[in-house]
Amino acid sequence: MRLPLQAWSREYDRTILAQDLAAAVIVTLMLIPQSLAYALLAGLPPEAGLYASILPLVAYGVFGSSRTLSVGPVAVLSLMTASTLGQLQLEGVHYLNGALALALMSGGWLLLFGLLRLGFIAHFISHPVMSGFISASALLITLSQLGPLLGLRLEGHPLLALPEALRQWSAIGHATLAISVVSLLWLLWARKGLRTLLLRLGLGAGLAGALVRLSPALLVVAGIGISELFGLAALGVAVVGDVPAGIPGWSWPRWSELPWPQLVLPSLLLALVGFVESVSVGQTLAAKRRQRISANQELIGLGVSNLAAGLSGGMPVTGGFARSVVNFDAGARTPAAGIYTAIGITLAGLWLAPWLGALPKTMLAATIVVAVLGLVDWRQFFHTWRYSRSDFTALCLTFLLTLLVNVEIGLLTGIVASLLLHLYHSYRPHWAEVGLLEGTEHFRNRLRHRVTLSPSLLCLRVDESLYFANAGQLEDIVATLVSLRPEVRHLVLQCSAVNRIDASALDSLLMINERLKLAGIGFHLAEVKGPVMDRLQQSPLPEKLNGRVFLTLYQAWLQLSPAELDYVI
Amino acid sequence: MRLPLQAWSREYDRTILAQDLAAAVIVTLMLIPQSLAYALLAGLPPEAGLYASILPLVAYGVFGSSRTLSVGPVAVLSLMTASTLGQLQLEGVHYLNGALALALMSGGWLLLFGLLRLGFIAHFISHPVMSGFISASALLITLSQLGPLLGLRLEGHPLLALPEALRQWSAIGHATLAISVVSLLWLLWARKGLRTLLLRLGLGAGLAGALVRLSPALLVVAGIGISELFGLAALGVAVVGDVPAGIPGWSWPRWSELPWPQLVLPSLLLALVGFVESVSVGQTLAAKRRQRISANQELIGLGVSNLAAGLSGGMPVTGGFARSVVNFDAGARTPAAGIYTAIGITLAGLWLAPWLGALPKTMLAATIVVAVLGLVDWRQFFHTWRYSRSDFTALCLTFLLTLLVNVEIGLLTGIVASLLLHLYHSYRPHWAEVGLLEGTEHFRNRLRHRVTLSPSLLCLRVDESLYFANAGQLEDIVATLVSLRPEVRHLVLQCSAVNRIDASALDSLLMINERLKLAGIGFHLAEVKGPVMDRLQQSPLPEKLNGRVFLTLYQAWLQLSPAELDYVI
Repeated sequence: MRLPLQAWSREYDRTILAQDLAAAVIVTLMLIPQSLAYALLAGLPPEAGLYASILPLVAYGVFGSSRTLSVGPVAVLSLMTASTLGQLQLEGVHYLNGALALALMSGGWLLLFGLLRLGFIAHFISHPVMSGFISASALLITLSQLGPLLGLRLEGHPLLALPEALRQWSAIGHATLAISVVSLLWLLWARKGLRTLLLRLGLGAGLAGALVRLSPALLVVAGIGISELFGLAALGVAVVGDVPAGIPGWSWPRWSELPWPQLVLPSLLLALVGFVESVSVGQTLAAKRRQRISANQELIGLGVSNLAAGLSGGMPVTGGFARSVVNFDAGARTPAAGIYTAIGITLAGLWLAPWLGALPKTMLAATIVVAVLGLVDWRQFFHTWRYSRSDFTALCLTFLLTLLVNVEIGLLTGIVASLLLHLYHSYRPHWAEVGLLEGTEHFRNRLRHRVTLSPSLLCLRVDESLYFANAGQLEDIVATLVSLRPEVRHLVLQCSAVNRIDASALDSLLMINERLKLAGIGFHLAEVKGPVMDRLQQSPLPEKLNGRVFLTLYQAWLQLSPAELDYVI
Repeated sequence: MRLPLQAWSREYDRTILAQDLAAAVIVTLMLIPQSLAYALLAGLPPEAGLYASILPLVAYGVFGSSRTLSVGPVAVLSLMTASTLGQLQLEGVHYLNGALALALMSGGWLLLFGLLRLGFIAHFISHPVMSGFISASALLITLSQLGPLLGLRLEGHPLLALPEALRQWSAIGHATLAISVVSLLWLLWARKGLRTLLLRLGLGAGLAGALVRLSPALLVVAGIGISELFGLAALGVAVVGDVPAGIPGWSWPRWSELPWPQLVLPSLLLALVGFVESVSVGQTLAAKRRQRISANQELIGLGVSNLAAGLSGGMPVTGGFARSVVNFDAGARTPAAGIYTAIGITLAGLWLAPWLGALPKTMLAATIVVAVLGLVDWRQFFHTWRYSRSDFTALCLTFLLTLLVNVEIGLLTGIVASLLLHLYHSYRPHWAEVGLLEGTEHFRNRLRHRVTLSPSLLCLRVDESLYFANAGQLEDIVATLVSLRPEVRHLVLQCSAVNRIDASALDSLLMINERLKLAGIGFHLAEVKGPVMDRLQQSPLPEKLNGRVFLTLYQAWLQLSPAELDYVI
C-alpha cells in the first residue's frame, strides 16, 4: 500500500513549511476551546478532548488523503457519544471506558470498510436525511447547553430543558448569567461585526476571517483571567476544574465491564456520520485546489485516527467542517499542518493545563451554541418540500425522530425510509405513448408534445428498469392499451429508459409476447441498451419474439408504419 | 362495493349451470383425497381439510374475481402451517387452535391489503424467489411423507428423514410398503399411461385429462375397499381413523392460550404466498378466456375465504394450481362451480365420513408426493443462472435457507435479498460516452458502435435514475472524463434513461455544474423526460445551469459541435 504521506512529503519545502506552520498556529488556538467544549458535551472530562486532538491528527496526517482536513472532536459525534453512553446508563469510569470503546469500534468499522474498498457507503445516507439529522442534532446540542449556560442542573430529555429551566429560574446565579450573556454577545458579534471592523482597519479578508475564528480563544483567555482575578469559582460559577497536565498515556477499554454488543450499532452509525461529514468537506476543499480525495483512503485515515483516539484516552473524532475551512483559508498545504497542530495541542496540554481549570464552563457552552446554531438549516426543509415530497418525508422523519426519540433511531429510520421510498417510486413506473416529433427522428410523449402517431403502430416508452416489483404493471399497461386500440397491428417497446431487465421481468415480456401473438399483434423492441441486449441474448426472448429488435425507434417507425395513414394529434 | 357475484349471476342460464355442475363433480372427487391429505400434511385431523373445502369456497364464490379458481387447502400452505405451529411446539388442542388462528390472521391480512388496494404486494416476491421457495417446499413435503409411506415415525428435520428411515429399516411393515409401492406406481402411471390409454379408447382429450385427475379418487375408493375387506388396520397399516360425520360448526381460536404475537409474521407470509400462487394461476386461466381478474378483489376474495376457514374449523386456503386447471378444463364457467363443489364436499362429509376412516394413510402420502414432485423445478436454476447471476443468487438463497432452516426464514431472506440486489445494481450505474450513428439522428455507445464523435463536445449517457446512492458516482464519472479530455468545451448529459432525480442527485448536478463552470466547460442536458423536467423547474438548476436544456441530443450536437472538426472513431 502506498501512503498519501509518500506523495506530499517528497515535494515538501520551506515555503510549504511556513504556510503549514501558520495554519497550524491558528487551528491550534481554535481547537483548544473546541476540544474542551466537545469533551464536556460528550459528558467526558476536558482532557479527553485534548487527547483526541493529538495522536488522531498525526495518524490522519500519515494515512488520510485530504490535504487540508482538520481532524478532531466535532459537535455531532460528541452528541452521539453522549446519547449512546447515556442510554446504557454508564457512569464514572464505565462512561470513560465506553467512550474509548466507541472510538475504537468506530475506528474498526472505518478501517474495515476502507480495506474492503466500500467507500460508496457514504452515499447511502441521502442529503435530506443527513440534513435532517444535522439540524435535529444541532437543536438538541443547543438545548443541552441551556443547563451549563444558566448554571443549572437540567435532567431529562433536552426538549424539556426550557420548561425545566423556567421552573428553576430562581436558582440561576447572577454571575453565571452575566458571563453567559456577555460570552454569547461577543461570539455572535465577532462573526459579523469583528470581521467588518478588521476589514475596515485594513486587514486582508483572509487574515480577518482567521482572526474572527480565534474569537473563542480570546474569550477563553479573557475568561481565565477574569476567573482567576475575581475568584469566580467561589461566587458559584461552575469552572472546568482540574485538567491534568501532561501527555496522553496508553489506554484500552475494559471490555469485560462493558455491554459492548450494544455499542456495535451505535459505533457503526458514528463511523457513518463521521465519514459522511468528513468526506463532504474534504471533497469541497480538494475541488477548490483541483485535488482529488479517495473515499477509500479517507476511510482508512479516519479509521486509524479513531483507533489512535481510543488508544490514547480520547473520544471519537472526524474532520470538522469549520476547522477544516479555517485550516484551508489559513494556507495549510499538506497534512503536516495537522501534525504541527498536534504538537501545538501537546504543548498546550503540558503548559496551559493548570490555567484551564479556572475557565467558566458557561463560556464553553456559549462556544458550542454559537458553533452549532448555524447548522440548523430551515431553508433545506423549504427547498426539499418544493423539489420532492418523498425526499421531504425522509427529511422530516429523520428530523423528528432524532429530536423526539434519539439520534440512532432518527438516523436509521431516515436511511431505511429513503431506500423504501426509492423502491416505491420504481414499482409503479411512468410510461408514455410516444410519437414522432415532426422534422426529427425523435419520439416524445403524445400528451406533452405535438407528435405524429400511426393508427396501426403503438410506440410505448416505459420509464423504469424492468424488475420484479414493476414487471406486472407492464403487463397491465400493455393489456389496457391494446384493448383500447383494436386497430393496432404492431407494438414497439422503446427501451431507452430500461437499464436492466431481471428474470421476473423477462417472464413478463415473454408473457406479453405470447398474448400479443395470440391477438395477432407484432411485438418489437427498439433502442435496447448494449448491456441489456447482451443479457437478453442469453434468454429465449429473441428467438420467441413475434417481431424484431430495432436499433432505433425511427427505424421501426419507417418499417412498420404505413406512411399514408399517419395522422397528427 | 360491487360484488363480482353481481356481474356473473345476471347472465346465468341453464347451459352454464350444466357446465358448472359437471366441473363441480370432477373437482369434488379430486378435492376429497386432497383435502384429507393436506390436512394430515399440516398435522391436523382429516376433517379440518374437509371443513376448509366448504365455507371458504362459498365465500370465494361471492367475493372472488376469478371465474375458475378452485380454492381450498394446498400443499405449500399446509407445509407452512405445520412449520409454524411445529416451531411453537404446540400440541393437541393448542395445535388446532393455532391453525384456526393462522387462517383467521392470514385472512385478516389479505382482507386488509385488499381494502387498502395493495394488490401490487404480490410483485414483491420475485419469480426466482417464489420458484426457489416452491422447489424447496416441494422437496421438504416429499421428504416429510417418507414416514407415512413406510409406516415409520421419523422425528426431526425432514432432511434427516432418509438416513433415519434407513436406520429403522427393519421396522417397516410389509403390508404398508406394498400399499405404498402400488399406490405410487398407479398414480405415476396414471399421469401418462392412463391418459394415452383413454385417448386410444377414443375418449376426447378433455375428458381423458379429467379422468386422469380422478386417479387419486379411484385409489381412495380401492383403498377403502381393500382396507375393509382385509382388515388392514389389524395388520399394522396406519389408517386415517375416525372422521366425524356432519357439517362444520362455528369455531373461534382461544387467543389467550396462544402465543399469537408469534403468529403475526408467519400469517403475513402465508397470506403473501397464498396470494402470489393464487393470483398467478388465476391470471393465466383468465387470459385464456380473455377475462381479467382484479388483484385487489382477489385479495378480498381470498381474505374472506380464509376468515371463513378459520371460523368453521378449517385451515389456511388459497387457489390451488392443479385443481383450478382441472376446474377450467372440465368446463367451469362461473364461481358457482366452486359453490357446487362445496355442496359436494358437504355431502361427502355427511355420507362418506364413516368410510374414510378405513383409508390407509400411506395412500394419502402417495397422493401428496406425486402431486408436489412436479413442483420442483430444476430447469429454473439453470435458466436463471444463464440469464442473471443476481437473480440466481436470490433463487439459491431462498432454496437453501428454506430447505435447511425453515420456510419463513427462507422466504424472508429471499425477499430482502432480491430488494438489496436491485438496489446494488442501481448504485453503480452503467454509463457510456455516446456518438452520432452515421445517417441517423441517433446516438449510441462509442465502444459498441461505429459513431461520429466531436473533440470539443462530450456526450454522456448515464443508464440509471439519479438518486442518493449513485449521485456521487456521477460526479466521479464527469470529473474523470473531463480530466482525460482537456479539449472538451461542452458536456451534454443525455437523460433518456434518467427516470428520476432526487434531492441528493440534484445537489450533485449543481455541484457538477459549478465545477464545470470553473473549468470553462458548458454543461447541458438533453432528452430530459417530462416528469423529470417538471420537477427540475422547481429547483435552482435551470437558472444556474451553465448551458442549455435541449429537447434532443441531436439538436445539442448541431448547435454545439463545430462540424469541420468531426472525426470518426
